Amino acid sequence: MARIAFDAMGGDDAPAATVAGAVEALRSHGLRAILVGVESRIVTQLRALDVREDEFEIVSAGSVVEMDEAPAAALRQKRDSSIVVAAELVKNGRADALVSAGNSGALMAAGVLVIGRAEGVIRPALGGLLPAANGPTFMLDIGANTDCTANELVQFAVMGSIYMQRLGAVKDPTVGLLNVGEESMKGNRLYREAHELLRQSGVNFVGNVEGMEILAGSIDVVVCDGFTGNIALKAMEGVADFAFRELRKGVESSLASKAGALLMRGAFQGLRRKFDYAERAVAPLLGLKGQVLIGHGRSDARALANGLATAQAAVDAGLVEKMSNSLRTTPANASQPKEA
Amino acid sequence: MARIAFDAMGGDDAPAATVAGAVEALRSHGLRAILVGVESRIVTQLRALDVREDEFEIVSAGSVVEMDEAPAAALRQKRDSSIVVAAELVKNGRADALVSAGNSGALMAAGVLVIGRAEGVIRPALGGLLPAANGPTFMLDIGANTDCTANELVQFAVMGSIYMQRLGAVKDPTVGLLNVGEESMKGNRLYREAHELLRQSGVNFVGNVEGMEILAGSIDVVVCDGFTGNIALKAMEGVADFAFRELRKGVESSLASKAGALLMRGAFQGLRRKFDYAERAVAPLLGLKGQVLIGHGRSDARALANGLATAQAAVDAGLVEKMSNSLRTTPANASQPKEA
Repeated sequence: MARIAFDAMGGDDAPAATVAGAVEALRSHGLRAILVGVESRIVTQLRALDVREDEFEIVSAGSVVEMDEAPAAALRQKRDSSIVVAAELVKNGRADALVSAGNSGALMAAGVLVIGRAEGVIRPALGGLLPAANGPTFMLDIGANTDCTANELVQFAVMGSIYMQRLGAVKDPTVGLLNVGEESMKGNRLYREAHELLRQSGVNFVGNVEGMEILAGSIDVVVCDGFTGNIALKAMEGVADFAFRELRKGVESSLASKAGALLMRGAFQGLRRKFDYAERAVAPLLGLKGQVLIGHGRSDARALANGLATAQAAVDAGLVEKMSNSLRTTPANASQPKEA
Repeated sequence: MARIAFDAMGGDDAPAATVAGAVEALRSHGLRAILVGVESRIVTQLRALDVREDEFEIVSAGSVVEMDEAPAAALRQKRDSSIVVAAELVKNGRADALVSAGNSGALMAAGVLVIGRAEGVIRPALGGLLPAANGPTFMLDIGANTDCTANELVQFAVMGSIYMQRLGAVKDPTVGLLNVGEESMKGNRLYREAHELLRQSGVNFVGNVEGMEILAGSIDVVVCDGFTGNIALKAMEGVADFAFRELRKGVESSLASKAGALLMRGAFQGLRRKFDYAERAVAPLLGLKGQVLIGHGRSDARALANGLATAQAAVDAGLVEKMSNSLRTTPANASQPKEA
């Protein structure tokens, strides 16, 4: 049984949403997470849900990294924060995975500084599941590394492929390199070099993919640096927000469209769900010695329960060991990490 | 009166759409473009529209750069192509601007190699008008330069500001730097350096903006390198396509939603128009000795007529001179262009 350290203080609505999520994970998935946080506040929430406090192991943490705190300073100053304490449980082998909807910068920093990189990994990468025409597309890096080398992009491709094989049930995931054109000489220096390395990397590399192909559904793993990936992802969120907002304005301008919108409610909800799916899914931080999964700050109890289930699946699939085994032996590992 | 060289052979449906566009520009805007292309084919199209061929000046070009040709090779081999001949009209002072919906790579190359950079400009940039909540947002570079320096990004900010002042009627355009977070130390090395330079640049710099703010309507000019900008722009197009496609699937799954969609037709068309607007607008290539405007390959006659009108407005506004005057005197000009 996977042991999961769950940051009970992380997220906009913590600890209410987190404790409710832990309870839901126990009831729906039989999954008993280790609750890390301010004990009295956790107990209050458990009681409010009529759950006996000895149903869960609670590991006490004295402070909380706020959502808008500068990550590096927060980690230095708050050694007893729920994020650091939960990361230490993983480091010390008392937990296999860490799930948190807290400050994502602090979580990435704690992943590297407390848990540590898996053997063979140059840099961990943050992955995101996006809705696509036929099942989700996995994109990485979406924000862990703003300056990348070509070797790092190759490692992201390997880690993304393993993730989609093991957790996405895709047999031989196709990998595309996000770029400005299909031809191999397209892109900036970094991407031209990465293209060449990917061709020799052993992943199922299908070539460059442009921005409009991310959601088209033909690529399982989209590889990019964390700067480009983060901007592309947020630009996509912006379009969805813009479209729903403008459509609402259009609907409110006439009675006929209002009636039409009511009749179309099912179709709209279906589309909303596809976009929410991405927001609800936890983002795995890949390439550490233990599995870290980062939830959206706005995650509700159900999203967090799903996040805990994903963590369990990742541990059961042996994701961390599989990635380390693959990356120890890839050529990319021959080069040294380049420090910024 | 602005003299505009119009590539009659450029675009998926040329010369039918281009000649029809030129005729529409003459009728709607009183704008008599110089038609550049294979004379016999242009004359055939004019006759099909019942227009006398002496209504237009036709400049003969013997060949056509196809949409999928490699730009550099095409320019070398097709010195008599409509793109090169039209660019030479601008170079020789016989035209003030060039409008084409042809091969955009070849147009950018012809802009630099034939027309040449305006004094003070390190690299020209391609701009795009995007639909936003309150009037369009101008984003640049969206694809002319895949490797940029911080000084180039500052010049893009200056050129974008002048464009929105002169053609967007925005008095003091706000400029945002596309980035992964608001804080000044966010981003990769290039963007951290650009942020510092922009603060001292004299443009109305409001700081970093994230991807979801591009369409939010609070920023007039969004500055980025051409690699990031191109990927973000196409990712945004991909979301719009995905959303319309998924919604159509949802609508077709029930009679009620079909009826609803009919009632909502006006609202949908309004939203479609906002997205089409971006596709219909010509993209200005800024920073050359003459104004070049690049239309989408799928542009129809009306989009091309609008493109010709935009070219006229750009010439009337003295855009080229204004940019050159501003950039000759900005500090960014102190550094030398860095060749890839």
